[in-house]
Amino acid sequence: MTSFAILGTGAIGGYYGARLFQAGFPVHFLCHRDYEVVRTQGLRLDSQGQSFFLPVSAYANAQAMPPCDVVIVALKTTQNHLLAQLLPPLLHPETTVLVFQNGLDVEATAAQLVGAERVVGGLCFICSNKVGPGHIQHLDQGGLTLGHYHTSGLTPHLEWLAQHFTAAQIPVTLAADLTTARWRKLLWNIPFNGLSVVLNCTTDQLLACQATAQLCKQLMLEVLELATATGHPLDPDSIAYLLRLTHQMPPYHTSMKLDYDRGQPPELEAIYATPLRIGNQYGHPAPRIRMLYQQLQFLTKP
Amino acid sequence: MTSFAILGTGAIGGYYGARLFQAGFPVHFLCHRDYEVVRTQGLRLDSQGQSFFLPVSAYANAQAMPPCDVVIVALKTTQNHLLAQLLPPLLHPETTVLVFQNGLDVEATAAQLVGAERVVGGLCFICSNKVGPGHIQHLDQGGLTLGHYHTSGLTPHLEWLAQHFTAAQIPVTLAADLTTARWRKLLWNIPFNGLSVVLNCTTDQLLACQATAQLCKQLMLEVLELATATGHPLDPDSIAYLLRLTHQMPPYHTSMKLDYDRGQPPELEAIYATPLRIGNQYGHPAPRIRMLYQQLQFLTKP
Repeated sequence: MTSFAILGTGAIGGYYGARLFQAGFPVHFLCHRDYEVVRTQGLRLDSQGQSFFLPVSAYANAQAMPPCDVVIVALKTTQNHLLAQLLPPLLHPETTVLVFQNGLDVEATAAQLVGAERVVGGLCFICSNKVGPGHIQHLDQGGLTLGHYHTSGLTPHLEWLAQHFTAAQIPVTLAADLTTARWRKLLWNIPFNGLSVVLNCTTDQLLACQATAQLCKQLMLEVLELATATGHPLDPDSIAYLLRLTHQMPPYHTSMKLDYDRGQPPELEAIYATPLRIGNQYGHPAPRIRMLYQQLQFLTKP
Repeated sequence: MTSFAILGTGAIGGYYGARLFQAGFPVHFLCHRDYEVVRTQGLRLDSQGQSFFLPVSAYANAQAMPPCDVVIVALKTTQNHLLAQLLPPLLHPETTVLVFQNGLDVEATAAQLVGAERVVGGLCFICSNKVGPGHIQHLDQGGLTLGHYHTSGLTPHLEWLAQHFTAAQIPVTLAADLTTARWRKLLWNIPFNGLSVVLNCTTDQLLACQATAQLCKQLMLEVLELATATGHPLDPDSIAYLLRLTHQMPPYHTSMKLDYDRGQPPELEAIYATPLRIGNQYGHPAPRIRMLYQQLQFLTKP
């Protein structure tokens, strides 16, 4: 039976790890501050009106964990420098590293450590938060998109990976081009993460005000232009689709807003700096995205 | 001797009125909430290490004030609709209305009421705040720029007006083209007023962070482009000049930030909406100014 390691038992790693555990897979959770709580009380998942208390295997450090078939990297991208210590104990010759992070080229660190051909990128379309130690609250959605980092196209290996999540009741989409899928995710993350921090608000408030609803759309158009210019065209209809989806979501504190409120470093490099750098190489200045990034740098400077 | 009426005894009206009073001119101050304090304790001006307590003529309503030779409109532009009631009692056939406000075309309301040929626009280059009832704190600078609203060019009437301020130790510049002067003022107001509200900070903090210092400059460039496109070219060197000046200023809470913190409506129409509307007519979208305006609309919506 395929074994999983979860690096980072937060809103993302906690949720998907819990679902895999519920589906019967052996799942090993690396915890940080929450280790004692998870070890003694289990991992708690609230979802759709139910609370699950899951007696999972928790670890305080990666050295104590066994090699696994699939390692899910669910750290913040700002912690990717830790992978050089965290990954090696978890690897056997066939281990797949699955990077569940937002932003562009976030797989680069893992690829350097294990080889690009063993890295798969994952995008999580989910509203979930860690609301307390070892306590994950799942609010809405939960689908995954998976794609190879080193190559384009769909493979039996991707399908094999997908089967595990499908078995765990998680809808999976396979992406022939991971970078296009990552740009599509940025279509949402770039406007809503940044503006929710700068304007101190939830996603529904941004859309309830005509001026910021228009700004969200304009920022999304800039993302679409960047993606298209850099060889990863997105369907222009995705903007209207994502706006409709966001309208239907409950009032949502974005992950960047939660990080900011907790005083944690936001993922500016992966979500803003890298896309802007790539766009700039293609002669696209993206003034609104740049301005949002400048404002976020101001607000989060050490 | 030329008589003055001051409509709005705040940071601007209070300062210039106080200076004219100190120079010996008859000055009549319209007060609102501060009427009792000014009537009983006088107007207080702190400037350059000195505190002046000035026994000025204070009025609680315009009907009680005499007609004056010069009416200085120093209300917020958001209160210009009050001019229809406030101005008539202060007018004689030769009264000049001097509009000391920021933004584009802020003279329009006064011009409709008294005729454009009797309206002069004034720009105040000053750091001053109202820090308490009837208490004006002058921090830095204080120069005025004056220009005709209905016509371009310098006239003996403008020179005559200027002499009074010169007599009151206030440096005056006469502008042959008022609109160009107003655009030049917006070069500062558009970035610093808006960003200080959105990012909750002072001007020195904006310049101390590399990202926002660059953003200020980019916003200034957009203002310069709008002004130039609409027939009011500005010297590109003014950007570097204003940035140097701002570096030399003490940490400064902009007037828009102070209004925002007090829950007062900010002057978005005069400082953002009108310039953007005019720029749009000339095919200039000014994305960064528009984005700042959108953010300010979100933060200040009723």
